[in-house]
Amino acid sequence: MKHAGICLAAALSVMAGATGSAQDKNRNDLKKPLVIASQGSFFVGGEKKSIQAGDVTVNQMYVQYQIPSNGNRHLPVVMVHGCCLSSKTWETTPDGRMGWDEYFVRRDRPVYLADQVSRARSGFDASTISAVKAGTQPPSALPNIIYASQQIAWTVFRFGPKFGEAFPDGQFPIQAVDELYKQMIPDLNALLPNPNPTWKNMAALAVQLKGAILMGHSESGFFPQQAALLDPSGIRGMISIEMPCPDLSADQIAKLAKIPTLVMFGDHLGDVKGGPANWAQSLETCNVYVQKVKDAGGDAVMMYLPKMGIKGNSHMLMQDRNSLQLADLIIDWIDKHVEKK
Amino acid sequence: MKHAGICLAAALSVMAGATGSAQDKNRNDLKKPLVIASQGSFFVGGEKKSIQAGDVTVNQMYVQYQIPSNGNRHLPVVMVHGCCLSSKTWETTPDGRMGWDEYFVRRDRPVYLADQVSRARSGFDASTISAVKAGTQPPSALPNIIYASQQIAWTVFRFGPKFGEAFPDGQFPIQAVDELYKQMIPDLNALLPNPNPTWKNMAALAVQLKGAILMGHSESGFFPQQAALLDPSGIRGMISIEMPCPDLSADQIAKLAKIPTLVMFGDHLGDVKGGPANWAQSLETCNVYVQKVKDAGGDAVMMYLPKMGIKGNSHMLMQDRNSLQLADLIIDWIDKHVEKK
Repeated sequence: MKHAGICLAAALSVMAGATGSAQDKNRNDLKKPLVIASQGSFFVGGEKKSIQAGDVTVNQMYVQYQIPSNGNRHLPVVMVHGCCLSSKTWETTPDGRMGWDEYFVRRDRPVYLADQVSRARSGFDASTISAVKAGTQPPSALPNIIYASQQIAWTVFRFGPKFGEAFPDGQFPIQAVDELYKQMIPDLNALLPNPNPTWKNMAALAVQLKGAILMGHSESGFFPQQAALLDPSGIRGMISIEMPCPDLSADQIAKLAKIPTLVMFGDHLGDVKGGPANWAQSLETCNVYVQKVKDAGGDAVMMYLPKMGIKGNSHMLMQDRNSLQLADLIIDWIDKHVEKK
Repeated sequence: MKHAGICLAAALSVMAGATGSAQDKNRNDLKKPLVIASQGSFFVGGEKKSIQAGDVTVNQMYVQYQIPSNGNRHLPVVMVHGCCLSSKTWETTPDGRMGWDEYFVRRDRPVYLADQVSRARSGFDASTISAVKAGTQPPSALPNIIYASQQIAWTVFRFGPKFGEAFPDGQFPIQAVDELYKQMIPDLNALLPNPNPTWKNMAALAVQLKGAILMGHSESGFFPQQAALLDPSGIRGMISIEMPCPDLSADQIAKLAKIPTLVMFGDHLGDVKGGPANWAQSLETCNVYVQKVKDAGGDAVMMYLPKMGIKGNSHMLMQDRNSLQLADLIIDWIDKHVEKK
């Protein structure tokens, strides 16, 4: 039972507390009851589309939130998951530890988890699939559905050099990898119009919240920037975790340079060969992006973790064993670069 | 902004509190901060399947939970949504009021929300769609995807006699119907093997929780019973909201009669003509089912709301304006028939 496991871990941690380090001590409060001022869920965006069965709503984005009792002290953080995943990314880790969703709330941040448009509780536009079944469109009209198979995930997420072999210093809780596999779900983003409605919805959510920090990962790593290029007015900070950075025009860079930016990359970027991702190259493109933002007078920080002495992080670093240490780095960055406290 | 709306409603409610009824007064505590002993998410079930891209996990069920500080006093309640919907069903209502998920937690019940297998964060088996695109299976192999279009939902969910016309005494917050439309997502249950893996997963979850009350609605209304027929050992109570009741054998009835059962139906069952649902007939079949369970010595209760003087409830009664009154009926039933306090 997952939460029984968590309780046991919590109890053991309390027992160990007396001899723990300052950082351990700092986290003893995580075992206290969580006090929520308000919570709930809602949708952002969505348009009516007429299909054979009648009118349906498409392109809406499902958002689930928790506001802690001290939440008015800090800006909300919006977390958006990557390819072939849902908001589960940010929740309880595969090995049953607290996710970033709750940790940020316990650090007094209102947290908003968004399922990307066309994924999970946001639903998707199924009309093409129905039309192919009905014979009114050819099979070639079907979307290219992306799966992260277990074999692909192992290497693309950098658990080890090849499937079944883990990096000796890897931070991912590899004994619980089967639980990660359960959260990998088909990616239907190929069904989406261009530009991706998630970008507009993220920008709209930031406006609705009267200011928010947007965080993306992998497939959605640059979504905070894509949202800001559409409407920067609500976006107070952008956190981008492990993705390729595109080549942007000087105008685009100037627009993005007005918003504090954090980019984070884990370890072993060049230690996995082949596959659809080239993380070493992604880091390079993001180093270029960060430098361009700085050259344009912006505040951009690259946290390349191994360079900071933090070793072994996978692509799923929010689920890695040191995930709360990384969360603390992000919260510290928010305090110093966005909220300037 | 949804939660701002809730806060406003809360403030108005506090202002009205001094002159409110006993029941209003009883709900003033809902504005207090929510205290959570633990929360998180996990999966139940799931099997490895080999597809062209490698191995993927299918048939897993995503579960999100909150355990209140007094949660050890009461049995957990597992809520499973209906057709073309997700666990959003039980969360913040379309007009921004507290959902049953939080209300049950505030009434000291641990609450577990499960996305049905093949829906939302549980993912789905997309291999048939990919095979049809690749030309290795014919278009006829594609699933019959069920959409609840706005037109179909209006009448099937009994908001009014025909699309765009609401029942004068209807309890559904019809001004917010567009927000309901956003939570209606394509139903891929046609992809599922037989028996539906959600049944096995619900039974397994009840065992894992060392005893739980299972609640289903509409498409999942009889899932608690289907789960109990597979493995009743963890199931302490079954709550079935608005569905047809199937004809069962005496053996099956005898098995189900060992578990306290509540069936609930709303209003206007015969006041909508045509469409894929026949609610008046569904009530009749469930009256027969309830009587058979009683005849077998079981404890079964039919709450046909209009007969109890509660008028105007729609099919989405957990989102209706009197949703908390209905939740109180269920909680009272749990206390008296399941926990026998």
